[in-house]
Amino acid sequence: MNSFGRIFKISIYGESHGNQVGVLIDGCPAGLAISKDDFTGDILRRKSGAKGTTPRIEDDKPILVSGVFNGFTTGAPILISFQNKNTKSDDYKDLFNFPRPGHADFTAKMKYGGYNDYRGGGHFSGRLTLGLVAAGVIAKKLISPVSVNARLVEAGGESNVEKAIDNAIKNEDSIGGVIECRAENVSVGLGEPFFDSAESLLSHIVFSIPAIKGIEFGSGFLAAKMFGSEHNDQLIDASGKTLTNFAGGVNGGITNGNPLIYRVVVKPTSSISKAQQTVNLKTGQKEELKVKGRHDVCIALRVPVVLEAVTAIVLADLMLLEQKLPRVISDKSAR
Amino acid sequence: MNSFGRIFKISIYGESHGNQVGVLIDGCPAGLAISKDDFTGDILRRKSGAKGTTPRIEDDKPILVSGVFNGFTTGAPILISFQNKNTKSDDYKDLFNFPRPGHADFTAKMKYGGYNDYRGGGHFSGRLTLGLVAAGVIAKKLISPVSVNARLVEAGGESNVEKAIDNAIKNEDSIGGVIECRAENVSVGLGEPFFDSAESLLSHIVFSIPAIKGIEFGSGFLAAKMFGSEHNDQLIDASGKTLTNFAGGVNGGITNGNPLIYRVVVKPTSSISKAQQTVNLKTGQKEELKVKGRHDVCIALRVPVVLEAVTAIVLADLMLLEQKLPRVISDKSAR
Amino acid sequence: MNSFGRIFKISIYGESHGNQVGVLIDGCPAGLAISKDDFTGDILRRKSGAKGTTPRIEDDKPILVSGVFNGFTTGAPILISFQNKNTKSDDYKDLFNFPRPGHADFTAKMKYGGYNDYRGGGHFSGRLTLGLVAAGVIAKKLISPVSVNARLVEAGGESNVEKAIDNAIKNEDSIGGVIECRAENVSVGLGEPFFDSAESLLSHIVFSIPAIKGIEFGSGFLAAKMFGSEHNDQLIDASGKTLTNFAGGVNGGITNGNPLIYRVVVKPTSSISKAQQTVNLKTGQKEELKVKGRHDVCIALRVPVVLEAVTAIVLADLMLLEQKLPRVISDKSAR
Amino acid sequence: MNSFGRIFKISIYGESHGNQVGVLIDGCPAGLAISKDDFTGDILRRKSGAKGTTPRIEDDKPILVSGVFNGFTTGAPILISFQNKNTKSDDYKDLFNFPRPGHADFTAKMKYGGYNDYRGGGHFSGRLTLGLVAAGVIAKKLISPVSVNARLVEAGGESNVEKAIDNAIKNEDSIGGVIECRAENVSVGLGEPFFDSAESLLSHIVFSIPAIKGIEFGSGFLAAKMFGSEHNDQLIDASGKTLTNFAGGVNGGITNGNPLIYRVVVKPTSSISKAQQTVNLKTGQKEELKVKGRHDVCIALRVPVVLEAVTAIVLADLMLLEQKLPRVISDKSAR
Repeated sequence: MNSFGRIFKISIYGESHGNQVGVLIDGCPAGLAISKDDFTGDILRRKSGAKGTTPRIEDDKPILVSGVFNGFTTGAPILISFQNKNTKSDDYKDLFNFPRPGHADFTAKMKYGGYNDYRGGGHFSGRLTLGLVAAGVIAKKLISPVSVNARLVEAGGESNVEKAIDNAIKNEDSIGGVIECRAENVSVGLGEPFFDSAESLLSHIVFSIPAIKGIEFGSGFLAAKMFGSEHNDQLIDASGKTLTNFAGGVNGGITNGNPLIYRVVVKPTSSISKAQQTVNLKTGQKEELKVKGRHDVCIALRVPVVLEAVTAIVLADLMLLEQKLPRVISDKSAR
Repeated sequence: MNSFGRIFKISIYGESHGNQVGVLIDGCPAGLAISKDDFTGDILRRKSGAKGTTPRIEDDKPILVSGVFNGFTTGAPILISFQNKNTKSDDYKDLFNFPRPGHADFTAKMKYGGYNDYRGGGHFSGRLTLGLVAAGVIAKKLISPVSVNARLVEAGGESNVEKAIDNAIKNEDSIGGVIECRAENVSVGLGEPFFDSAESLLSHIVFSIPAIKGIEFGSGFLAAKMFGSEHNDQLIDASGKTLTNFAGGVNGGITNGNPLIYRVVVKPTSSISKAQQTVNLKTGQKEELKVKGRHDVCIALRVPVVLEAVTAIVLADLMLLEQKLPRVISDKSAR
Repeated sequence: MNSFGRIFKISIYGESHGNQVGVLIDGCPAGLAISKDDFTGDILRRKSGAKGTTPRIEDDKPILVSGVFNGFTTGAPILISFQNKNTKSDDYKDLFNFPRPGHADFTAKMKYGGYNDYRGGGHFSGRLTLGLVAAGVIAKKLISPVSVNARLVEAGGESNVEKAIDNAIKNEDSIGGVIECRAENVSVGLGEPFFDSAESLLSHIVFSIPAIKGIEFGSGFLAAKMFGSEHNDQLIDASGKTLTNFAGGVNGGITNGNPLIYRVVVKPTSSISKAQQTVNLKTGQKEELKVKGRHDVCIALRVPVVLEAVTAIVLADLMLLEQKLPRVISDKSAR
Repeated sequence: MNSFGRIFKISIYGESHGNQVGVLIDGCPAGLAISKDDFTGDILRRKSGAKGTTPRIEDDKPILVSGVFNGFTTGAPILISFQNKNTKSDDYKDLFNFPRPGHADFTAKMKYGGYNDYRGGGHFSGRLTLGLVAAGVIAKKLISPVSVNARLVEAGGESNVEKAIDNAIKNEDSIGGVIECRAENVSVGLGEPFFDSAESLLSHIVFSIPAIKGIEFGSGFLAAKMFGSEHNDQLIDASGKTLTNFAGGVNGGITNGNPLIYRVVVKPTSSISKAQQTVNLKTGQKEELKVKGRHDVCIALRVPVVLEAVTAIVLADLMLLEQKLPRVISDKSAR
């Protein structure tokens, strides 16, 4: 199912080399002031252009197609679209029978019987995250003063990201990284005991972002090496504030009012310029493949803003469910 | 929402010290042979009694309340219940105002306005995983010959689990662990490109299991230190088999036919015998707390079978969606 | 999918001649006072025993299995079960190959490959509505002071119900009826413009009740004969009150604050004592069938309380979504 | 929630006088041949222009934005949009404080706090059904050889539709009608025993169409006047064929292989040229209102093709669930 959320619900659509990509948002409260300028900052952060990112640059102007009227959300579904302009589909013509290692080329072809749009990864492209970022802009405005911040804390095994990227470029290779995401001012009580725990919902949407291989909350994998007496966060007041935060802000699936903290790992970009081995799906023979096209050396550079977006989307949904956000932002009915 | 799944859908209910716990399964194909004996093995693996587990022992006999007739599933909802017998609720009476560190006591009280059943963790208890294991028994039968196996690969930072437990017992403390889960014979094509990626669904249900702090697929957090040229799994034939399996069996959210592999980290049990600090929620004062009751030293020992269960549940659901499993297991209509 | 609702969500289970029937309620606010006595009145109204209803009488005592603690809902899933005691399964043994006309015997057998529990209609039995009534009792308490009342306004084509039943008994036949359901004090704004319109949700759950063949809101089928100038309800004040109520309390899918009114038609009970023709599914030959067992002459007599229940369930769900009902009924956190 | 369906899932968006309207389809099988020409017939049937319909005429050319590649569906989400061109928003400027009787003006304003786009009914407009028709075109192709046909059988209380329309035009008034919809070649086994009965799903989506006030299956409201011995459809062979079809093709919520038949009533168009009374929401005073803009005398004329669409959508969804439709229409993987 290509949608997510229970009340604040998003669906994404589009292909890397098709006409457009975008997002449909259902259940957004009415009365939220929204303008194109609200999107500029986050879209710029997701954009390529910096060292370590692909030279394919799109202008990425959001079109507010529906659900916004006179500068405010109306309560009706919001469609936000982005035109694709700078596409070079010729780069991908050969790939139908030569799946790129580490990519979805093989699985997409098998699942969809060869009917998938394979150009630039088609619907599997990281370009689809543009819709997530756009929905995130709205979600962030909704949940304010809850704030969400993510940053790349490690790349290619180094805390010096720039050095790691230079090294990867020199090797015609790619690298991954680790990103930490942190939400502050989260209210107590978001999430459910089991299937819709805060961690369940966050990990669900986080693993919809291409290239993520793992997620850990609070202490994460370090917890395996700790004693309970170390790991248990000691309460220091009746509001639930704790001395440490190994829980990452969640107990029993429910936010506890401390900062919500998680880390994800982003694998090295699958597309690399180096020659690689693949199999010709038509003949079954091994063949050498040089991936053409324009690629990111370290896609992890562009993921923090996407993580912020999906985190804000989950929080907006849970806050609406727990009635910490109203269905109409303010009341203009007397005007 | 306390249910999970799209076609094969489960809901769990009950409290640790209430009347019973159980699971309601909707959408199970008709015609699957099922008997009480099918549950014995997995329920035993989840059970306590071994060194490092709680001395509370329940007989855990499944009652097949509905949806099974003449030894076969009927296609109607299946309710499986387990009586609670060996409860000692007195142990928990004081805890209403003295939240145990690391537990859901505080968040549950805040979320439900103090109405939650707090005895033994109530609905937040690990005892609720019994329903997951029961549903998993059915799911495993459904998806066969797909097999799912999980094992504890590390506890308390050691690969020698027994030694780590002895050490924790000696310290009146608890320890966590790392579990690896592996599914073999998974068909190509399960999962969706974005929100319902195989990793999204698996992590969603995995994080509904109490005490899980992280999950990683394939290379996992190690990917942050690898080059793309190392990480990309090389195809070796047209069936999709790869030389390495850093992807963990999933590309672009979709299973690729190689073994599905993930690891989770289980935090050290929150309940420990050692004295701890907490806050009296009524007065706001700090107080010392000694957690009474019967506890697991290393709850991670009992989690592998739960992970197998939830993995089988996700695979059953995806296989039904992709029509790799029929809606009626065989045809007795001519009898 | 055997569940309904977005926030206040119900799932029913059980079979007519199995161990029990019941309902699982997820998402009920915490803090609602609930006791077994709350169920007595509505369960009695659903019960058989009066003239025109089946002589199978069950004591129908609700068992509050989970989700209720110290007399209040806890916020955890509520399981309510009812034991089946007065079953006579022998009456149904022959029916596996001889589908009763007007019943689900044929469709159930085909859909589930012959694995369905056919005794007394199995999971298709009207007995399953007991779970709906039980969930309705809780929903009615939640939505108060919104009130829901349904009554049989016509049976067998007569407004004199008693006379029509006498006539049907004399003929060894069965009759149907028309029921009107009316909700008062409904707040403005429940329902969505399209797929989750108030009428969509109500009709969805109403058609889950066995034997319903039609539903109409407000003017209903009469609207086909009216002019717009007659049909348009004239507003008489700024609160939305209208002079007439041909809309039935809903405009554009959304409640308008006037009474919500709909009518349903219940078909004559399919089980009749008269001999009927059927087909032997094994041989394909026509055969005469005399339906044994105990039947209602006019099942419509027992449906009003079920309609009230499902209406209250939909309203509770929509009121939670629109934040007209809180997630915790009152605040005991300071106790 | 502005979406519908479990596997074949649709979401609609847009406003009458906004930029565009459209539909997002998720879960459509890959490999279905689709071209713009496929839409021409049904869009024309929905279009205005004939006597009794509004003079607002849009060219209604579908734009296949995503999910279609090289003339086939890809398995990715399909976005189909329609530009709005012939809008006259000035006609509606006064209506913000003067709700039109019988319209959603009042409920929309209350629900969305006055932020709704009120021009031409905004998101509540019948123009949104264009997305339903577009999705229906795809659904009809999918379910073939199942066929769905709907026709207006009565308007303004007359079976002579033309005469009734002439009469309404003469009176500056509007009329309603009754439409019968019939699906042939429906397989046995679609639908669930309770909440997702075939009637539940059909009525759910049918009541999302503006102006529908009632629905009845098979015998419908006539059933209230029949005996069981008349109403029970007699089986005539082991395939489930029945002599009569009072059930309307559904027993116990599940299709029985006979034609699926239902009728709906469409109320007279709310917008009429005649002067009407309303209330000024700002002052609370009654005022006379003359509805400007361009209207349909008998909107029921345009509804049959919408009913066909939603019926095909439900059938496609159920057929996918029951595996009567594959997830990939044919196999081009060897090409």
